[in-house]
Amino acid sequence: MEDERLDVELDFGENELIPAIAQDVETGDVLMLAYVSPEALAATQNTGLAHYYSRSRDELWQKGGSSGHVQQVKEIRVDCDGDALLYRIDQEGGACHTGYRSCFYRTIEGETVGEKVFDPDKVYE
Amino acid sequence: MEDERLDVELDFGENELIPAIAQDVETGDVLMLAYVSPEALAATQNTGLAHYYSRSRDELWQKGGSSGHVQQVKEIRVDCDGDALLYRIDQEGGACHTGYRSCFYRTIEGETVGEKVFDPDKVYE
Repeated sequence: MEDERLDVELDFGENELIPAIAQDVETGDVLMLAYVSPEALAATQNTGLAHYYSRSRDELWQKGGSSGHVQQVKEIRVDCDGDALLYRIDQEGGACHTGYRSCFYRTIEGETVGEKVFDPDKVYE
Repeated sequence: MEDERLDVELDFGENELIPAIAQDVETGDVLMLAYVSPEALAATQNTGLAHYYSRSRDELWQKGGSSGHVQQVKEIRVDCDGDALLYRIDQEGGACHTGYRSCFYRTIEGETVGEKVFDPDKVYE
């Protein structure tokens, strides 16, 4: 099974990172976009929990590792060019560190359209 | 009106590009991920049709300019960090140059899960 993974060839590019979109598998809502290294992808596949690579902290991280707002990955899809991933997930709590369900909680004009589902001051201490 | 745009501050980063997710506004399906320059975003806002920036061709392009498979942009959302966009669109035909409705038509294991909606040999001559 381990050997049969990654049947679709991926193109991680020069910086060895690929964008991954997290989509609520039930509602279709787009919850966040983050970056994935080969190690983050392997950790996601091995645990069933979404892992990403933080460009600012320069480290692998498990979504929800500190907040408990984990993402159970039900399916991973790959785009035509192999340079973007779609994590189809069950989101515990909210995806956004601001307390919103989705990181995409605002329109470009600044209108808030998303739903706040937790108080970040209580979750991140 | 022109002056009031971009109320949410965007972070285009060093290479002046930001990833944009195109999502079917009716079904919630994620159709593609591409990159947007400030000029591509302005063209999108000015025309209501999705524009992107091709990293391989190094040029601004309008989605569907040659295929006719344009994307009418109904809403643009911004993520919490201002470094990713969500284009909520009406997709004419298919988003993928391979003929599928979505570029994310395969699982990472290589199973085809998407719907083919046109014959690329007939659309791109």
